[in-house]
Amino acid sequence: MKLTGFNTEYKIWLEKNGAIFGDGLSDLLSSISGLGSISRASRELGMSYRAAWGKIRVAEKKWGIPLVVTRVGGEAGGWAKLTPEAEELLKTYCRLQQEVDEFVQNLPEKFFTGR
Amino acid sequence: MKLTGFNTEYKIWLEKNGAIFGDGLSDLLSSISGLGSISRASRELGMSYRAAWGKIRVAEKKWGIPLVVTRVGGEAGGWAKLTPEAEELLKTYCRLQQEVDEFVQNLPEKFFTGR
Repeated sequence: MKLTGFNTEYKIWLEKNGAIFGDGLSDLLSSISGLGSISRASRELGMSYRAAWGKIRVAEKKWGIPLVVTRVGGEAGGWAKLTPEAEELLKTYCRLQQEVDEFVQNLPEKFFTGR
Repeated sequence: MKLTGFNTEYKIWLEKNGAIFGDGLSDLLSSISGLGSISRASRELGMSYRAAWGKIRVAEKKWGIPLVVTRVGGEAGGWAKLTPEAEELLKTYCRLQQEVDEFVQNLPEKFFTGR
Protein backbone atom coordinates (compact mmCIF):
# COMPACT_ATOMS: atom_id res chain seq x y z
CA MET A 1 0.00 0.00 0.00
CA LYS A 2 1.19 3.48 -0.75
CA LEU A 3 0.58 6.46 1.46
CA THR A 4 0.61 9.48 -0.78
CA GLY A 5 0.42 13.20 -0.28
CA PHE A 6 2.07 13.32 3.14
CA ASN A 7 4.68 15.99 3.78
CA THR A 8 7.50 15.64 6.25
CA GLU A 9 7.84 18.70 8.46
CA TYR A 10 10.33 19.42 11.20
CA LYS A 11 11.82 21.86 13.64
CA ILE A 12 15.43 21.66 14.76
CA TRP A 13 17.29 23.71 17.33
CA LEU A 14 20.42 23.77 19.49
CA GLU A 15 20.33 23.47 23.24
CA LYS A 16 22.90 23.94 25.99
CA ASN A 17 22.35 24.21 29.74
CA GLY A 18 18.63 24.76 29.28
CA ALA A 19 18.90 27.67 26.83
CA ILE A 20 17.77 27.19 23.24
CA PHE A 21 19.25 28.52 20.04
CA GLY A 22 16.31 28.35 17.64
CA ASP A 23 14.53 30.64 15.21
CA GLY A 24 13.90 33.26 17.92
CA LEU A 25 17.51 33.91 18.87
CA SER A 26 18.68 33.32 15.32
CA ASP A 27 16.35 36.01 13.95
CA LEU A 28 17.30 38.37 16.75
CA LEU A 29 21.05 38.00 16.26
CA SER A 30 20.74 38.23 12.46
CA SER A 31 18.75 41.40 12.83
CA ILE A 32 21.24 42.92 15.29
CA SER A 33 24.03 42.03 12.89
CA GLY A 34 22.23 43.71 10.01
CA LEU A 35 20.98 46.82 11.85
CA GLY A 36 23.84 47.31 14.31
CA SER A 37 21.41 48.03 17.11
CA ILE A 38 19.46 45.98 19.65
CA SER A 39 16.64 48.52 19.84
CA ARG A 40 16.19 48.68 16.06
CA ALA A 41 16.42 44.88 15.83
CA SER A 42 13.83 44.36 18.57
CA ARG A 43 11.51 46.90 16.90
CA GLU A 44 11.88 45.09 13.58
CA LEU A 45 10.92 41.82 15.25
CA GLY A 46 8.01 43.33 17.19
CA MET A 47 9.48 42.66 20.63
CA SER A 48 10.50 45.02 23.43
CA TYR A 49 14.11 46.08 23.89
CA ARG A 50 13.94 44.59 27.35
CA ALA A 51 12.75 41.21 26.04
CA ALA A 52 15.45 41.15 23.35
CA TRP A 53 18.22 42.06 25.75
CA GLY A 54 16.90 39.55 28.31
CA LYS A 55 16.90 36.76 25.74
CA ILE A 56 20.51 37.50 24.87
CA ARG A 57 21.68 37.79 28.47
CA VAL A 58 20.06 34.52 29.54
CA ALA A 59 21.76 32.67 26.68
CA GLU A 60 25.13 34.32 27.37
CA LYS A 61 24.91 33.36 31.01
CA LYS A 62 23.83 29.76 30.46
CA TRP A 63 26.34 29.12 27.69
CA GLY A 64 29.18 31.07 29.25
CA ILE A 65 29.94 32.93 26.00
CA PRO A 66 29.39 36.55 24.99
CA LEU A 67 27.00 37.05 22.06
CA VAL A 68 26.59 40.78 21.63
CA VAL A 69 28.96 43.69 22.29
CA THR A 70 27.43 47.12 22.77
CA ARG A 71 28.73 50.63 22.99
CA VAL A 72 26.39 53.13 24.61
CA GLY A 73 25.89 56.76 23.58
CA GLY A 74 28.08 58.98 21.43
CA GLU A 75 26.90 60.95 18.42
CA ALA A 76 25.60 57.93 16.56
CA GLY A 77 23.64 56.84 19.63
CA GLY A 78 25.66 53.71 20.31
CA TRP A 79 25.84 50.45 18.45
CA ALA A 80 25.67 46.71 18.93
CA LYS A 81 27.54 43.98 17.12
CA LEU A 82 27.88 40.23 17.31
CA THR A 83 30.84 38.48 18.89
CA PRO A 84 32.74 35.87 16.85
CA GLU A 85 31.00 33.21 18.98
CA ALA A 86 27.58 34.53 17.99
CA GLU A 87 28.60 34.66 14.32
CA GLU A 88 29.78 31.07 14.61
CA LEU A 89 26.51 29.96 16.24
CA LEU A 90 24.45 31.68 13.55
CA LYS A 91 26.50 30.05 10.81
CA THR A 92 26.28 26.64 12.48
CA TYR A 93 22.53 26.95 12.95
CA CYS A 94 22.06 27.98 9.34
CA ARG A 95 24.14 25.05 8.02
CA LEU A 96 22.31 22.71 10.37
CA GLN A 97 18.95 23.84 8.95
CA GLN A 98 20.25 23.38 5.41
CA GLU A 99 21.62 19.89 6.03
CA VAL A 100 18.52 18.65 7.78
CA ASP A 101 16.30 20.31 5.21
CA GLU A 102 18.11 18.49 2.43
CA PHE A 103 17.92 15.21 4.33
CA VAL A 104 14.23 15.61 5.07
CA GLN A 105 13.38 16.70 1.52
CA ASN A 106 14.77 13.42 0.28
CA LEU A 107 12.76 11.35 2.72
CA PRO A 108 9.19 11.44 1.43
CA GLU A 109 10.09 9.79 -1.85
CA LYS A 110 11.87 7.00 -0.04
CA PHE A 111 9.13 6.57 2.51
CA PHE A 112 6.01 7.01 0.49
CA THR A 113 6.57 5.50 -2.89
CA GLY A 114 7.66 2.08 -1.70
CA ARG A 115 11.16 2.47 -3.12
CA MET B 1 36.76 28.55 17.47
CA LYS B 2 34.90 25.58 18.77
CA LEU B 3 31.42 25.68 20.19
CA THR B 4 31.15 22.84 22.64
CA GLY B 5 28.39 21.35 24.72
CA PHE B 6 25.52 22.15 22.36
CA ASN B 7 22.95 19.44 21.71
CA THR B 8 20.92 19.20 18.56
CA GLU B 9 17.24 18.66 19.25
CA TYR B 10 14.37 18.23 16.83
CA LYS B 11 10.74 17.41 16.25
CA ILE B 12 9.52 15.81 13.06
CA TRP B 13 5.99 15.01 11.92
CA LEU B 14 3.90 14.16 8.88
CA GLU B 15 1.28 16.50 7.47
CA LYS B 16 -1.43 16.14 4.86
CA ASN B 17 -4.34 18.49 4.14
CA GLY B 18 -3.83 20.33 7.40
CA ALA B 19 -3.90 17.28 9.69
CA ILE B 20 -0.75 16.25 11.50
CA PHE B 21 0.59 12.78 12.24
CA GLY B 22 2.91 13.41 15.18
CA ASP B 23 3.50 12.02 18.65
CA GLY B 24 -0.13 12.60 19.66
CA LEU B 25 -1.78 10.48 16.99
CA SER B 26 1.10 8.01 17.00
CA ASP B 27 0.71 7.37 20.74
CA LEU B 28 -3.05 7.11 20.39
CA LEU B 29 -2.97 4.62 17.53
CA SER B 30 -0.23 2.55 19.21
CA SER B 31 -2.27 2.42 22.36
CA ILE B 32 -5.44 1.41 20.50
CA SER B 33 -3.47 -1.28 18.72
CA GLY B 34 -2.15 -2.62 22.02
CA LEU B 35 -5.33 -2.37 24.07
CA GLY B 36 -7.93 -3.07 21.35
CA SER B 37 -10.15 -0.29 22.63
CA ILE B 38 -10.44 3.44 22.06
CA SER B 39 -11.84 4.07 25.54
CA ARG B 40 -9.04 2.16 27.26
CA ALA B 41 -6.44 3.82 25.03
CA SER B 42 -7.81 7.30 25.74
CA ARG B 43 -7.87 6.56 29.48
CA GLU B 44 -4.25 5.37 29.34
CA LEU B 45 -3.26 8.62 27.63
CA GLY B 46 -5.26 10.81 30.00
CA MET B 47 -7.62 12.16 27.35
CA SER B 48 -11.39 11.85 26.94
CA TYR B 49 -12.92 9.23 24.67
CA ARG B 50 -14.53 12.08 22.76
CA ALA B 51 -11.20 13.85 22.21
CA ALA B 52 -9.53 10.61 21.08
CA TRP B 53 -12.31 9.72 18.67
CA GLY B 54 -12.43 13.31 17.38
CA LYS B 55 -8.68 13.29 16.68
CA ILE B 56 -9.04 10.08 14.69
CA ARG B 57 -12.10 11.22 12.74
CA VAL B 58 -10.55 14.54 11.75
CA ALA B 59 -7.44 12.79 10.41
CA GLU B 60 -9.51 10.14 8.58
CA LYS B 61 -11.59 12.83 6.94
CA LYS B 62 -8.69 15.08 5.91
CA TRP B 63 -6.54 12.22 4.63
CA GLY B 64 -9.38 10.26 3.05
CA ILE B 65 -8.26 6.99 4.64
CA PRO B 66 -9.77 4.90 7.45
CA LEU B 67 -7.55 4.55 10.53
CA VAL B 68 -9.59 2.64 13.10
CA VAL B 69 -12.30 0.00 12.72
CA THR B 70 -14.66 -0.50 15.65
CA ARG B 71 -17.31 -3.05 16.57
CA VAL B 72 -19.80 -1.88 19.18
CA GLY B 73 -21.31 -4.02 21.94
CA GLY B 74 -21.44 -7.80 22.30
CA GLU B 75 -20.31 -9.74 25.34
CA ALA B 76 -16.76 -8.39 25.25
CA GLY B 77 -18.09 -4.82 25.06
CA GLY B 78 -16.84 -4.14 21.54
CA TRP B 79 -13.35 -3.63 20.21
CA ALA B 80 -11.26 -1.33 18.07
CA LYS B 81 -8.41 -2.15 15.74
CA LEU B 82 -6.18 -0.34 13.30
CA THR B 83 -6.65 -0.46 9.55
CA PRO B 84 -3.69 -1.51 7.36
CA GLU B 85 -3.33 2.18 6.43
CA ALA B 86 -2.95 3.16 10.09
CA GLU B 87 -0.42 0.36 10.66
CA GLU B 88 1.52 1.62 7.66
CA LEU B 89 1.47 5.21 8.91
CA LEU B 90 2.67 4.13 12.36
CA LYS B 91 5.49 2.10 10.84
CA THR B 92 6.47 4.93 8.52
CA TYR B 93 6.44 7.47 11.34
CA CYS B 94 8.56 5.20 13.51
CA ARG B 95 11.15 4.61 10.77
CA LEU B 96 11.16 8.33 10.01
CA GLN B 97 11.98 9.12 13.64
CA GLN B 98 14.74 6.52 13.64
CA GLU B 99 16.34 7.76 10.42
CA VAL B 100 16.27 11.40 11.45
CA ASP B 101 17.44 10.52 14.94
CA GLU B 102 20.44 8.73 13.52
CA PHE B 103 21.15 11.59 11.14
CA VAL B 104 20.87 14.20 13.88
CA GLN B 105 22.96 12.18 16.35
CA ASN B 106 25.80 12.27 13.88
CA LEU B 107 25.59 16.01 13.37
CA PRO B 108 27.01 17.53 16.56
CA GLU B 109 30.39 15.93 16.08
CA LYS B 110 30.58 17.23 12.56
CA PHE B 111 29.35 20.67 13.50
CA PHE B 112 31.01 21.31 16.81
CA THR B 113 34.45 19.78 16.74
CA GLY B 114 35.63 21.46 13.57
CA ARG B 115 35.94 18.16 11.70
